[in-house]
Amino acid sequence: MKKKGFFITFEGIDGSGKSTQIQKLAKFLEDNGFDIIMTREPGGSVGGEEIRNLLLQGEVDRWSAETEILLFTAARRDHLERIILPALQDGKIVICDRFTDSTRMYQGMRGPKLRNLVDNLTEEVINCEPDLTIIIDIDPEISLKRAKSRETAEERFEDFGVDLQKKMRKGFIDLSKEFNFRIKVVNGQQSVDDLAKEIFSLVKARLL
Amino acid sequence: MKKKGFFITFEGIDGSGKSTQIQKLAKFLEDNGFDIIMTREPGGSVGGEEIRNLLLQGEVDRWSAETEILLFTAARRDHLERIILPALQDGKIVICDRFTDSTRMYQGMRGPKLRNLVDNLTEEVINCEPDLTIIIDIDPEISLKRAKSRETAEERFEDFGVDLQKKMRKGFIDLSKEFNFRIKVVNGQQSVDDLAKEIFSLVKARLL
Repeated sequence: MKKKGFFITFEGIDGSGKSTQIQKLAKFLEDNGFDIIMTREPGGSVGGEEIRNLLLQGEVDRWSAETEILLFTAARRDHLERIILPALQDGKIVICDRFTDSTRMYQGMRGPKLRNLVDNLTEEVINCEPDLTIIIDIDPEISLKRAKSRETAEERFEDFGVDLQKKMRKGFIDLSKEFNFRIKVVNGQQSVDDLAKEIFSLVKARLL
Repeated sequence: MKKKGFFITFEGIDGSGKSTQIQKLAKFLEDNGFDIIMTREPGGSVGGEEIRNLLLQGEVDRWSAETEILLFTAARRDHLERIILPALQDGKIVICDRFTDSTRMYQGMRGPKLRNLVDNLTEEVINCEPDLTIIIDIDPEISLKRAKSRETAEERFEDFGVDLQKKMRKGFIDLSKEFNFRIKVVNGQQSVDDLAKEIFSLVKARLL
């Protein structure tokens, strides 16, 4: 495989298995001689992590959707400038847990005006889409059980409950149709190793 | 004077005497039977103050201009939703220390693209301009001495130095021409009481 900068994002509802699959993909790519970095959103940079703390802790109605979109975009801009773009320019493979698609979903699905706001801000200050996005599709009844088993203060989004997660699952599938040139949907209910193999082959096909 | 919601902002470089004049105007208006609230930017609401902490502490290059604009706009949106608009709807007079004009100046003056970003974000998520803006104009050599005499961790902007403050002074004057229907420039080098009287009469003229 020829080395070049390549930007991969993972998306899906909480507990879909993104972290596990990112670890496995990172190891696979390193074993194949690629320079990779793993990162996450919101956060990923020093400033981004500080904004993440504002976003993920506290009450569900702590911020309005509009303020939330502005904060996510600020964190993303910092992350992009300080971590993602420099790594891509160094020819690295960047694997990122969530990116703009999550904001399109979690905030943008609350109405066309909000989705518009996400898209306008993204065009204006982010202007960078992944080369490949993997959506791990899973039944929310299963994923929520996984997410709840983790001990964390960052419960704001997980508190939204199973009904919202079902809407989100559908929303991610809709997104995959809208951006079908870069988004691949994989089945998160197969075994961890089978899923990892499916993801390796998707990535290999794009990197070869 | 008839009671109605009215939105007054104060602008000017650091140390221009905004806080003192805001206190005096607030007292004058209360003595005349108005319901007023005093607030400030960045900050002014619980969430806004938390974003303020991210913005005003740390190194000068902690955030890029674009990230800074996004954070200021997020803080302003929160402040507007939770404090300013409810007070105006209650018929109060809102007196705010800095608002969008400061972002137009401090971030927007770094280039037309950044000024554009401020204006686009403002149109999209703020969509509220003051009824009256008072710019206190002062020689930066004088104002910087005042600003430096305050003990505070919030030095990021004051560290910019006297040359930048001179550009800012000019920038505020330019803004007053661009928005001449709502911005009044007053001389910050007269005595505190003379300046207060000038401001009272400007406000009275608009409220009567």
